[in-house]
Amino acid sequence: MTELKNDRLLRALQRQPVDQTPVWMMRQAGRYLPEYRATRAKAGSFMDLCRNPELACEVTLQPLARFPLDAAILFSDILTIPDAMGLGLYFTEGEGPRFKEPLRDAAAIERIGLPDPEQDLGYVMEAVRLIRRELAGQVPLIGFSGSPWTLATYMIEGGSSKNFALSKGMLFENPALLHRLLDKLAAAVTLYLNAQIAAGAQSVMIFDTWGGVLSPRDYELFSLAYMRQIISGLTRVHEGRKVPVTLFTKNGGQWLHQMAESGADALGVDWTTDLADARIAVQDRVALQGNIDPCILYASPQRIREEVANVLNSYGSAPGHVFNLGHGIHPNVNPDHAATLIEAVHQLSRPYHAGE
Amino acid sequence: MTELKNDRLLRALQRQPVDQTPVWMMRQAGRYLPEYRATRAKAGSFMDLCRNPELACEVTLQPLARFPLDAAILFSDILTIPDAMGLGLYFTEGEGPRFKEPLRDAAAIERIGLPDPEQDLGYVMEAVRLIRRELAGQVPLIGFSGSPWTLATYMIEGGSSKNFALSKGMLFENPALLHRLLDKLAAAVTLYLNAQIAAGAQSVMIFDTWGGVLSPRDYELFSLAYMRQIISGLTRVHEGRKVPVTLFTKNGGQWLHQMAESGADALGVDWTTDLADARIAVQDRVALQGNIDPCILYASPQRIREEVANVLNSYGSAPGHVFNLGHGIHPNVNPDHAATLIEAVHQLSRPYHAGE
Repeated sequence: MTELKNDRLLRALQRQPVDQTPVWMMRQAGRYLPEYRATRAKAGSFMDLCRNPELACEVTLQPLARFPLDAAILFSDILTIPDAMGLGLYFTEGEGPRFKEPLRDAAAIERIGLPDPEQDLGYVMEAVRLIRRELAGQVPLIGFSGSPWTLATYMIEGGSSKNFALSKGMLFENPALLHRLLDKLAAAVTLYLNAQIAAGAQSVMIFDTWGGVLSPRDYELFSLAYMRQIISGLTRVHEGRKVPVTLFTKNGGQWLHQMAESGADALGVDWTTDLADARIAVQDRVALQGNIDPCILYASPQRIREEVANVLNSYGSAPGHVFNLGHGIHPNVNPDHAATLIEAVHQLSRPYHAGE
Repeated sequence: MTELKNDRLLRALQRQPVDQTPVWMMRQAGRYLPEYRATRAKAGSFMDLCRNPELACEVTLQPLARFPLDAAILFSDILTIPDAMGLGLYFTEGEGPRFKEPLRDAAAIERIGLPDPEQDLGYVMEAVRLIRRELAGQVPLIGFSGSPWTLATYMIEGGSSKNFALSKGMLFENPALLHRLLDKLAAAVTLYLNAQIAAGAQSVMIFDTWGGVLSPRDYELFSLAYMRQIISGLTRVHEGRKVPVTLFTKNGGQWLHQMAESGADALGVDWTTDLADARIAVQDRVALQGNIDPCILYASPQRIREEVANVLNSYGSAPGHVFNLGHGIHPNVNPDHAATLIEAVHQLSRPYHAGE
C-alpha cells in the first residue's frame, strides 16, 4: 500500500497533535459542483451513478481536485444496504428515496437476509478499491453507513418521512419486531463497514440521521444500542493503522455524553450545540467533528471566515477537532465559498496547534 | 365575567398545587376529528375557517365536547400576523402555507407596518370573545402567536422551508436587516397577544417552531431576545387574575436554562428531552408543559397508558406540570386514542398530587 501523505484526519480523530485542523465537508462530492452534475448527467439516475465504480470514483475525487481537503469520502448512499436486501431503491425528483417493497409486516422482516458485501454490494467495494488506488495516499478515504434506526425508518416508511408514523408506530406497538429488524441491520452494517475497511476505507462513519427524533430512552434502546453493537464488531486496525470510527446523530446534541461511551473515536456535532459545551459533555473521551451551519456558505467570504474563526475558537486549542459542516453541503452553494471555508480552516487553525 | 370552573391549567402554569395534572393537546382542534373536517368542508379553505369567528369558535370547542380537557386553545394560525402585514397568506394542498408577497429585499421589510389587532385582525379577536362566551367558564382559553424568528422564516422563504437558505442567508449576511424585521414582528406580536388577552385569552403561548434550527448563539440573538422583549410587554394580570405565558421552542431542549430566564411562566418541552432533565435545567423557575411523543397515539390504549405513566413519573410529584404532546396531534390519529391519553393523565396523575 502507498504511504499516506496527509494523516491529519486520522491523527485528529485519535486526538493526536496536528499542524492545522483537518477539514472535509459532508456531501463534498455533490450537486453544488458543476463537474458532479456533468458526471451525474452522463451516468443516468442517482443510483446508476452509485452503482458505477468508475463514475463513483470520479465524483469522489472531484472536490479534491478543487480544494485542499484533508479527506475523501466514498460517494454512495446510505440506502444501498436496504436495496441489497431486496427492497428496490429508487429516487423520485424532489421527493427523495423510495422503496418499491417497504417493510409492512413481520413476515417481510423475517424474510430479510444479510447481504454479502462483496457479492451483493460489490459495486461499493469496487469503488472503494478504485478510489484508494486513485488517491495514491494523497489523503485518507472515509467509508460510511447509515445507522440501523435510520435505515429502518426508510425501510418501514417506504421513503423519507415527516412524522415517522409507521416506524414509531412499530416502536411503540411492537418493539420486539423493530428490535428484530434493527438486529439484522446492525449485523448487515457491521459486515458492510468491515468490507469497506478491507477494501481500503481508512476511517468509517455511521450516519444516524434520524436518531434525533426519538426520546432519550428510545434513542438509547433503538439507536445507540445498535451503533454500539456495530462498533464492537468493527475491524479497528487495518494496514497496521488504527481505523477511527465516527458516530453522528443529527440533533443528538443532548446525548453526546452517552454517545461518548459507545466505543466510537469521534462524534459528529451539528451547529445547535456549541463545541465548547460538547467538549464538556464528552470529557476528552472522543474527538469531535463539526460543526458550522452549512447555510454560512450562502454568506460572503468575510462572514465565512468570521464564522470559521468562531467555530475554531469554540473548540479551543486541545487536539481532537475535525472541522466539518454540521450537515451536508446544500446543492445551490457557490463552490468558491467552499474554497474560502477550507482555506480559512487551515489558515486560522494554525495558532491553535502551535504548541503541539 | 363568568367564574372559571376549572383553573387547573392556570394554577399548574404558576406552579401551584392541583388535584390532578391538567392536560390539553397542541392542535386539539384539528383534522383528526371528523366533526372538524365537516366544519372545514363547510367553511371552504383553511383561511376561510380561520377568518370566520363563528366557525373558528365551533372548531375550538369541538374537542371539549368529546374529551375532559383542561383548556381550550383558540383555533387560528401563526401566520395571521404576516397576512395582516399584507403578504397574502394562502395554503396549498400538501405544501402548507405560502405567501404571495414574500419579503425579498430591504425595501419590502421597511414597508411593513404594524397591524392593528382590532382593525386588521378583528376576526381573531371576535373569535376569542365568542369562544369565551361559549365556554362559560368551563375551562380557560389559551391564545397564541408565532415567535418573531419563526414568522420571519416563513415571510422570507415565502412558505415552509427545509434548509432556511434565504432566512439564514439574511441572518449571516445582513443581520441588521433581519433584526429590523424581528423588531417589527416583536412589536406586532406584543400588540396581538395583548389584544387577545383583552378579548378574553386567559393564558398565552408563543410557538417558536423554528428556533431549534439555529446555533446556540443565534438562538439567543435572533429568537430568544425577541421573545423576551414580547414577554416584557405583555399584560400579565387581567380580570384580576395572572395571565401565564408559555414559551415553546421545538428542538430547544438544550436551551431550557436560558429560556427559563425569559420571563415566561412555563416552557413547552418536546419528547427529545426527559422532563426530569428539563426540571434540573430550569431549577423551579418555571412550569413545564409536555412532552409525550404524538406518535404514541398510533399505539394501543394499553401502551398509551404506559407512556403517560412514564411521562408523569419523569416529571415527578412537584407542582408545575401541564401534560401535553411534544408537538401537534397528527391528522390521522384515532380520536379514541386521544380520549385514552386524556383519561390516563387525569387518573394516573392523582397520586402525584395527593400531598398537595
